Amino acid sequence: MTEAAELRYHVDGELVPASEATVSVRDRGFLYGDAAFETMRAYGGSIFNWDAHADRLQETCSVLQIDHGIAPDELHRRVTETLAANNLTDAYIRLSITRGVQPGKLTPSPDVDPTVVIIVKPLPRGGSDGEPVWDSPATLQTVKTKRVPNAAIPARAKTHNYLNGILARLELQVSDADEALMLDSAGYVTEGATSNLFFVRDNALRTPSLDGPILPGITRRVVLDLAASEEIPVEEGSYRPDDIRGADEVFLTNSTWEIRPVTRVDGIAIGDDTDYTPANSDSNPLAAAGPVTTLLSKLFAARIDAEYEEPTASGQ
Amino acid sequence: MTEAAELRYHVDGELVPASEATVSVRDRGFLYGDAAFETMRAYGGSIFNWDAHADRLQETCSVLQIDHGIAPDELHRRVTETLAANNLTDAYIRLSITRGVQPGKLTPSPDVDPTVVIIVKPLPRGGSDGEPVWDSPATLQTVKTKRVPNAAIPARAKTHNYLNGILARLELQVSDADEALMLDSAGYVTEGATSNLFFVRDNALRTPSLDGPILPGITRRVVLDLAASEEIPVEEGSYRPDDIRGADEVFLTNSTWEIRPVTRVDGIAIGDDTDYTPANSDSNPLAAAGPVTTLLSKLFAARIDAEYEEPTASGQ
Repeated sequence: MTEAAELRYHVDGELVPASEATVSVRDRGFLYGDAAFETMRAYGGSIFNWDAHADRLQETCSVLQIDHGIAPDELHRRVTETLAANNLTDAYIRLSITRGVQPGKLTPSPDVDPTVVIIVKPLPRGGSDGEPVWDSPATLQTVKTKRVPNAAIPARAKTHNYLNGILARLELQVSDADEALMLDSAGYVTEGATSNLFFVRDNALRTPSLDGPILPGITRRVVLDLAASEEIPVEEGSYRPDDIRGADEVFLTNSTWEIRPVTRVDGIAIGDDTDYTPANSDSNPLAAAGPVTTLLSKLFAARIDAEYEEPTASGQ
Repeated sequence: MTEAAELRYHVDGELVPASEATVSVRDRGFLYGDAAFETMRAYGGSIFNWDAHADRLQETCSVLQIDHGIAPDELHRRVTETLAANNLTDAYIRLSITRGVQPGKLTPSPDVDPTVVIIVKPLPRGGSDGEPVWDSPATLQTVKTKRVPNAAIPARAKTHNYLNGILARLELQVSDADEALMLDSAGYVTEGATSNLFFVRDNALRTPSLDGPILPGITRRVVLDLAASEEIPVEEGSYRPDDIRGADEVFLTNSTWEIRPVTRVDGIAIGDDTDYTPANSDSNPLAAAGPVTTLLSKLFAARIDAEYEEPTASGQ
């Protein structure tokens, strides 16, 4: 892609210039956030973990009862078409399915004419020879905004209702932290506004269990699988903020960040690396990370490397 | 308005045909439901209770920290312009303000270029000579979906994050009820998916207090004021579903429905009117309503009548 070229998005079955990519103001995705989405990365032209993203997208649509009738293969084709139209092989991808335009009532009609929107933008290549999309390890700050309970909106649904995370992020203006540490109504740790949380303590890798209001992250699952393959002890449980503050290592995961080390939680330095400064992390992003985070990051990069070795046409 | 004419909406400062009324797929109102809105009615060309709607819209924008910089008078002018462009004097109005398009991060930027969208559609005239927009009194059904707690998203903010109410409405498919009766996490009654709840019991008008996760409805406020003016005893409190099921009268309020009587809650007939059938309500919508509901409905209609007597140009 030449740098001056305008990106093209995929809207309702058509490729359109980004500046002309729109939805109706009567689309329920706009009126109510009544839509499912996935954020993905392409590495070397291949959509990383497509099957897992397609499954979760379908799970979200099941929760919302959006019977869109579009096969995963067709969605994959549209994403691939969008990447090709922009000459992108390493990219950020956001795929949304809305309930479309319906008569003006809150109660959805079962007859759905869905709106499918695919937004892409270039990202650096990933893997061992790549570089993270974040500038530095993250700082975490516990916020007052509580995660929406599963009984109100199931957290396994990834939807366009994102104000809960936005309100959490707005609280970070005072501390200037990078990510919000969100608790559930009972005070247990859940996740960040856009990331899952892991920590290392007492020689085990720990992460909040999906019994709580926690998005079942695709990268979270990959990290758990990588840890199992290395026989690292893993616990999915219920944790208090003090468990995180006193951890040996903390990191965040999502599809864009991959594995992002955390150096401070509520202003408290994590682990022994108290002399960490942002300056040294610019040269080596893992300089601030502990041994388990570093190992998992290298294993994750090796998984990405494999994407570049496969034929891009495989698309899985 | 001739019936064949296409409605015109107001988008980003311009009147456009409804079919061309769109927002960018990168608008945060679409991506995240990151937007405030109000639903209003115009009676005789005048926006009913504009000041109260403008105040609540500003309160929502304050909660979301959307510093849009548009004066209430300018918003009023745009609504009036939209009504005039469609030759509408009796209408439904939906006014939305989104945080607009920003760089691709969840954390909002304080520099807001807001998107303002005004959608209108014709409604019958209101008041004593009018007719309700609903076909029949409502049936209510308690749902499993719990209201989002104030600690997650403050209920006083009326936003484009409406999936909580949509999930509640989806539960009504089995019972075929008209509105969901939503409880908070502790099991107390809150409101409907799009309406506030009132009931009459032990000779007082009662409604859930705004201490819970309840939208401070504009019509709710009008009804409380009307009750006070008639010296009807009023209590704002905490109630259980059984309090509603055993009530003498139940009704719902919102700006579109105004006051809508409820005849059944969880399949249980309300009050003494056990021989109510939908057939008789078609001829007289208040046939199924108890004395307090009927009185308040007549007082409300009288308030609307006054709108038709005022010069429409006053508009607040």
